[in-house]
Amino acid sequence: MARTTSLSGFTEWLPEERLVELHVLDTLREVFERHGFASIESRAVETIDTLLQKGEIDKEIYAVSRLQEEAGRDARLALHFDLTVPFARYVVENAGHLDFPFRRYQIQKVWRGERPQDGRYREFTQADIDLVGDGALPFRSDVEIGVVMAKALEALPIGDFMLRVNNRKLSEGFYRSIGVTDTTAVLRAIDKLEKIGAEKVSEELVSSGAATPEQAQQALQLAAIRATDTSFVPAVSALLGEKQADELLEAGLAELEEVVAELNKRVPGRVTADLSIARGLDYYTGTVYETVLLGHESLGSICSGGRYESLASKGRRSFPGVGLSIGVTRLVSRILAEGGLSASRKVPAAVFVALRSDADWGAAQDVADALRTRGINVEVALQAEKFGKQIRHADRRGIPYVWFTEGDGAHEVKDIRSGDQTSADPQSWVPAAQDLLPRIVESATD
Amino acid sequence: MARTTSLSGFTEWLPEERLVELHVLDTLREVFERHGFASIESRAVETIDTLLQKGEIDKEIYAVSRLQEEAGRDARLALHFDLTVPFARYVVENAGHLDFPFRRYQIQKVWRGERPQDGRYREFTQADIDLVGDGALPFRSDVEIGVVMAKALEALPIGDFMLRVNNRKLSEGFYRSIGVTDTTAVLRAIDKLEKIGAEKVSEELVSSGAATPEQAQQALQLAAIRATDTSFVPAVSALLGEKQADELLEAGLAELEEVVAELNKRVPGRVTADLSIARGLDYYTGTVYETVLLGHESLGSICSGGRYESLASKGRRSFPGVGLSIGVTRLVSRILAEGGLSASRKVPAAVFVALRSDADWGAAQDVADALRTRGINVEVALQAEKFGKQIRHADRRGIPYVWFTEGDGAHEVKDIRSGDQTSADPQSWVPAAQDLLPRIVESATD
Repeated sequence: MARTTSLSGFTEWLPEERLVELHVLDTLREVFERHGFASIESRAVETIDTLLQKGEIDKEIYAVSRLQEEAGRDARLALHFDLTVPFARYVVENAGHLDFPFRRYQIQKVWRGERPQDGRYREFTQADIDLVGDGALPFRSDVEIGVVMAKALEALPIGDFMLRVNNRKLSEGFYRSIGVTDTTAVLRAIDKLEKIGAEKVSEELVSSGAATPEQAQQALQLAAIRATDTSFVPAVSALLGEKQADELLEAGLAELEEVVAELNKRVPGRVTADLSIARGLDYYTGTVYETVLLGHESLGSICSGGRYESLASKGRRSFPGVGLSIGVTRLVSRILAEGGLSASRKVPAAVFVALRSDADWGAAQDVADALRTRGINVEVALQAEKFGKQIRHADRRGIPYVWFTEGDGAHEVKDIRSGDQTSADPQSWVPAAQDLLPRIVESATD
Repeated sequence: MARTTSLSGFTEWLPEERLVELHVLDTLREVFERHGFASIESRAVETIDTLLQKGEIDKEIYAVSRLQEEAGRDARLALHFDLTVPFARYVVENAGHLDFPFRRYQIQKVWRGERPQDGRYREFTQADIDLVGDGALPFRSDVEIGVVMAKALEALPIGDFMLRVNNRKLSEGFYRSIGVTDTTAVLRAIDKLEKIGAEKVSEELVSSGAATPEQAQQALQLAAIRATDTSFVPAVSALLGEKQADELLEAGLAELEEVVAELNKRVPGRVTADLSIARGLDYYTGTVYETVLLGHESLGSICSGGRYESLASKGRRSFPGVGLSIGVTRLVSRILAEGGLSASRKVPAAVFVALRSDADWGAAQDVADALRTRGINVEVALQAEKFGKQIRHADRRGIPYVWFTEGDGAHEVKDIRSGDQTSADPQSWVPAAQDLLPRIVESATD
């Protein structure tokens, strides 16, 4: 992990690290598919116009152009910086071929030209799930997406995590109820709470004229409400006091109550109502999610998203959706660096077939093929060397078994961890079940 | 397949097409891992300098730069156009952390700014295997890589294919034996044979001074030799006649003989010695492979590669290798367009759990979770609608089973293809084995 990369912000894993990443990606895919989500991939490039529609992110974009491009001939292109904007474009473009409601997962690289720093990459993998409707999408989708993602995260070797949930309607409805008109300005200020603190947020709200000192105070009090159950509902009512609740607030409270109650039931201990969560991006309209990895709070949110009523639209037809996105590279990096986890070996092979002489290569491949028919991954030596050297070859890679064929054609297999060597039949021998594939294990301490 | 894409040369699959691509990628991964190849990924960008070292390909490169980049601050970057050059860089950069000989597979997108046309994409997926040594790599590797790739291709639903193999040493040694000095010029001209024909190749060779008319004639006769067995060896001797065979020719003949003999033994019927194969890129030094999909010759080679003695080097340390690369996107496109294959359904789910009322959503998820524990992919309805409408929802996606829970709590499952409906227990019911996952099947004719 202390390797330097030749391009800052662009991480490349060693084969044994890649096995950990593959385990994470395979696990996510399995959980997503188990819940009916279909895979798609979008192209890596979008037109710059498409990307810029979604806000002030031009500093982060990597533009793409052919070296030999004739000026003005091609559309101005850039690498996508997330998977939500491309997905919205994909849905609109293929609406006639898709069945709604549409559940999709998408696991791809994204690129951001940000300054590389701890946990920030210029190229990284995201894993997204979204549920999108045509015209309408039942609120229940917000619950489903949270449950599926919580189950996916539970299946990963990452330890304890907590989904922090809020609802934009709740916050905005509350601000309305206390007489705020520019609710967006208040949401944006509250979004900075963790970064700049309550005092600065209050100052900003008051000096910009978005809120009176009293309103700022109440917005901050709302943001301070946290509950692992639905007790936030009476807490909000108490805070509101005599004031009339705006109907947006009522709607938001009811939605958040359902999300928290259902998640508590289906994935107990994984959800906190946290009324400070705002999510900077403007397109969220209801439920908003962040996820904290307990003990690794400095990582920031490892999985975020929410409900959007109008991210995608085609003329008067709109496609409301709800989605969540995991930053996989950051997570894998943390697993490797601090989680103490690694792959049990560096290669897929469970067996290394040694060579007595170079002329035995074909016979050794026959042995390997017999093992392979039973799903065993096998590597065959490329050349005959001293057996000690061939065993070291296997040992360096963590391959647990070395296969020998004697001069008389008898077969033996050696467990090089224990040194046990027994006779074996290529037509029937199988390794111990836990040795079949590389596993994710606690790393040996350095 | 008749969909137009919004960016020419950038293909995006529909969910049901993506399932076919996923099947191809999963199959390749399985075969590669079965033979001991480890996964790596390299970053999508390289410095332009790294890419330009490998020849005159600047027209094809997509340059990448931050929109807000300060001039001259960042290294000049571009998207990789294959996986061989990045792999060579990766090997050199991580040599101290890798174990040689190193078997790796790599499945990633690559980008080329070429004019989009039939079967050519600006973004496409490649699947590569390479076997790389430190300082030396036994020739047997050339055989292994061909066998593994032939087995991988046999596992795909693509029909018959043929590996066409040659050896650069053989061609170059032959040219030397007949008195040619600029052997590279002759190789390059022969490489154009399929495109421009024998007459033009001969003209070019003679007019450039690279060969006499007689030498050009003999080079073309060599290129006309094809054999599915090792009978090309006496054929080359006969063509050489009284002339003394250069030792490079002897070496090339021996190597190609071994490749053809071993492939015939391990993957019968999959190899032809084709002495016209040259491969344009300069770095090949021995065995060269192309692959033709029988009946789809217009696709060009679907899988190519070969031996390179010095693609990667670090000071005086060199890393010889041999590798093969499949153009996956082109292959999937052909499977879908002309192969008559498609996914048996559009989504992973085998079961759709219908809702009698919205209040039953939690109970329906309980049923789904019970099924999911047995590896069954399940989708739950988002809202209660008429059963006919819910069945159509499943039918449009090709989901074979719809699950109903009666008012009295009894469970029934309907196979919507046959209409059969039977009582079922969520704790024990399983679908027919062939319905568990989407399969690749013959498409219904349009």
